[in-house]
Amino acid sequence: MKHLISAGDLGRDDALLILDTAEELARVSERSIKKLPTLRGRTVVNLFFEDSTRTRISFEAAAKRLSADVINFSAKGSSVSKGESLKDTALTLEAMGADAVVIRHGASGAPHRLANWVRGSVVNAGDGTHEHPTQALLDAFSMRRRLGRLEGLKVAVVGDILHSRVARSNVLLLSALGAEVTLVAPPTLLPVAVENWPCQVSYDLDSVLPKSDVVMMLRVQLERQNAAFFPSAREYSRRYGLDRDRVAKLHDDAIVMHPGPMNRGMEISAEVADSPRSTIVEQVANGVTVRMAVLYLLLGGAIGGDVQ
Amino acid sequence: MKHLISAGDLGRDDALLILDTAEELARVSERSIKKLPTLRGRTVVNLFFEDSTRTRISFEAAAKRLSADVINFSAKGSSVSKGESLKDTALTLEAMGADAVVIRHGASGAPHRLANWVRGSVVNAGDGTHEHPTQALLDAFSMRRRLGRLEGLKVAVVGDILHSRVARSNVLLLSALGAEVTLVAPPTLLPVAVENWPCQVSYDLDSVLPKSDVVMMLRVQLERQNAAFFPSAREYSRRYGLDRDRVAKLHDDAIVMHPGPMNRGMEISAEVADSPRSTIVEQVANGVTVRMAVLYLLLGGAIGGDVQ
Amino acid sequence: MKHLISAGDLGRDDALLILDTAEELARVSERSIKKLPTLRGRTVVNLFFEDSTRTRISFEAAAKRLSADVINFSAKGSSVSKGESLKDTALTLEAMGADAVVIRHGASGAPHRLANWVRGSVVNAGDGTHEHPTQALLDAFSMRRRLGRLEGLKVAVVGDILHSRVARSNVLLLSALGAEVTLVAPPTLLPVAVENWPCQVSYDLDSVLPKSDVVMMLRVQLERQNAAFFPSAREYSRRYGLDRDRVAKLHDDAIVMHPGPMNRGMEISAEVADSPRSTIVEQVANGVTVRMAVLYLLLGGAIGGDVQ
Repeated sequence: MKHLISAGDLGRDDALLILDTAEELARVSERSIKKLPTLRGRTVVNLFFEDSTRTRISFEAAAKRLSADVINFSAKGSSVSKGESLKDTALTLEAMGADAVVIRHGASGAPHRLANWVRGSVVNAGDGTHEHPTQALLDAFSMRRRLGRLEGLKVAVVGDILHSRVARSNVLLLSALGAEVTLVAPPTLLPVAVENWPCQVSYDLDSVLPKSDVVMMLRVQLERQNAAFFPSAREYSRRYGLDRDRVAKLHDDAIVMHPGPMNRGMEISAEVADSPRSTIVEQVANGVTVRMAVLYLLLGGAIGGDVQ
Repeated sequence: MKHLISAGDLGRDDALLILDTAEELARVSERSIKKLPTLRGRTVVNLFFEDSTRTRISFEAAAKRLSADVINFSAKGSSVSKGESLKDTALTLEAMGADAVVIRHGASGAPHRLANWVRGSVVNAGDGTHEHPTQALLDAFSMRRRLGRLEGLKVAVVGDILHSRVARSNVLLLSALGAEVTLVAPPTLLPVAVENWPCQVSYDLDSVLPKSDVVMMLRVQLERQNAAFFPSAREYSRRYGLDRDRVAKLHDDAIVMHPGPMNRGMEISAEVADSPRSTIVEQVANGVTVRMAVLYLLLGGAIGGDVQ
Repeated sequence: MKHLISAGDLGRDDALLILDTAEELARVSERSIKKLPTLRGRTVVNLFFEDSTRTRISFEAAAKRLSADVINFSAKGSSVSKGESLKDTALTLEAMGADAVVIRHGASGAPHRLANWVRGSVVNAGDGTHEHPTQALLDAFSMRRRLGRLEGLKVAVVGDILHSRVARSNVLLLSALGAEVTLVAPPTLLPVAVENWPCQVSYDLDSVLPKSDVVMMLRVQLERQNAAFFPSAREYSRRYGLDRDRVAKLHDDAIVMHPGPMNRGMEISAEVADSPRSTIVEQVANGVTVRMAVLYLLLGGAIGGDVQ
């Protein structure tokens, strides 16, 4: 692997390699070894064209635990906002010695273009409505840690699929790993092309819940909704929100996921979010671990032996 | 100690332990040993809901000198501004591996609530009009370094007590350490509850000065003043500003303090701020040292022997 | 050397020492040794009163490769914006233990004033329309790497000289190093005092090109232009833009430089920017190397032997 642009590009083998490496790193961390010297002297640049403090911090923590130097580049107020092209920004970062560029961009495809211009590794931290592959990897990692397997798991992804790069990356990754995904949303919040995706579609959450091992609730991004297509918040919550009554329909071992940040009371009730079924906090911790594995594998450090 | 939320919670013993540890760290630093390996592999998150570059940098420098990794989280433009609750933010930071969270928040009590949710240590870096305990600790440390003792010191704290978390923390800490505090302010800038505080109150600066060992001038925060209660800037300066004439009333060894940033010419004249009595620059240096001591003690590093 | 305020203050010997040190550091870096322990325990503060992500990152990368701790201080939203004086900010940073302050400021002369107040080293990262000495040093370093010498080189600097600290620093440095500079600009974009500068002036780019070894194009900062004096963008580009036809007038070994960020299609065509004559990407890489040399020499580390 040189770059991580799309969950769809990851074959089953590469995906499992990342998850297994993350598992190994998680075990090292559980032995209270918090910092590895693997990427000492390497530089990771966080190039964020959209604000996303959570994702930026997760990558920053991952890189620092591997002893890399981290430079945060927020495009706001930078030469980018003075009209510099993405290409020139990329060449600049490369010339400054960036070994990896973690990019968050509002335009789908920006990380792909970036990867054509730089010699270092590019990691997609979310591009437009396209993909967010490390989110899908941490979700898969969280499922496997809780449920012991991915093969054959039944996963419901619920909410605004239309605007969700998280949903898209999850569908691609989970199907490659043998899970069966059902997207659940009102018809107006599904992309037209969804019929070509490797998954099922349903408009009826209540009928999907009893047969699901995993229910992944998506954040409602009210600021992205078109009033003509989005039901009222109250109506949305009534039909697609996950509350105690709906959770009661799940089988005993089923888990509840959310990529965060949550709108408690909207797509998920506070009670459900804080329940033992919820993996929401684990997902955050696993995010750092999975991103460590990604940086580790992309930057080619050798694992084993060199623990500080 | 697990958290540092309030100067009022610190007993005399814990407060002295912090000051004595800071003294030890200051001596190490004077031997030109600038960096200690004590917190290597630990992560300190600066979670700032209000801008405060000075305080953030002071904690950042303190943590880095102890070899901790530092992650800065400014709530502006983050998911917090998208409506995420403080609790979810806290759980996120915890899950990412924060060993300590340094929090600055506009709401009094926010650090206290945070401490209920996380396993790591919480350090209050200023909450609303409530407390700013590391400021009080660095002030006490600065007084003790200059005057050799705290017991029995007569300290005048002058200015807008009503809005000042610095004043409140100082009253609580200094009284626990045996100093005698007198608050000096116009009646409209004193809180109603001040009569229950362990200190004296005066409206007349000139009568307090001759018997003071320490005069601590507070910053006038004009943006917080209610025009109905605040005298004009000129009138304020005339009655409560510290200038050459007023300083002449102090005894020879008395010192002048200010937490910064100063409004030179308003609450303190430039001449006084730059005079040998002034500890203002020392306070800044001592701030880093005291915050090192706090992080060191909270995160449980062992002192001695392991100097790099 | 204690500070680096102005290229004009650098004698020929100091300038060559910086370039030679940078050359040595570049060779170390080419042996894949990315990080040197030289400045471990030292703190470099980036004090930026103007946004300049590129320059800030370049200094940050340079300092981190020398193992210094870096603290970024953006004046926006800080106490500076609450009216704190530059002097008090400086004393604060000094008290916090800054060994070097890298300052970018909108007012010409700010770094010079800063240097009067602090014991640490001050590096000018651009002040008003005055100077940007590390840019001139990296430009000289880039020329010498490409063309093997500086003595006798004919350098054309083209564009808005009036507002350009880059042009000013380059004229001062290059003339000290024996190069011959010709400034090329419309009369309205030349400072009145240019007749006292150690360089030639021309209004006619086409006549200057055939005898130039180096053509340095300046960024057009449209936001700084006075409509009464600046020709239209199209007219400017026609008369002073560097395109394929103009480059054809250069001799075979001549190089094309630009400090970035470029307005492709305005002062330089995309084709020229990406051609083999262009040193634009090298300039960025050399920027980190030269800034390492500057920090290294100012902070007095010893080179040699201690490579990690």
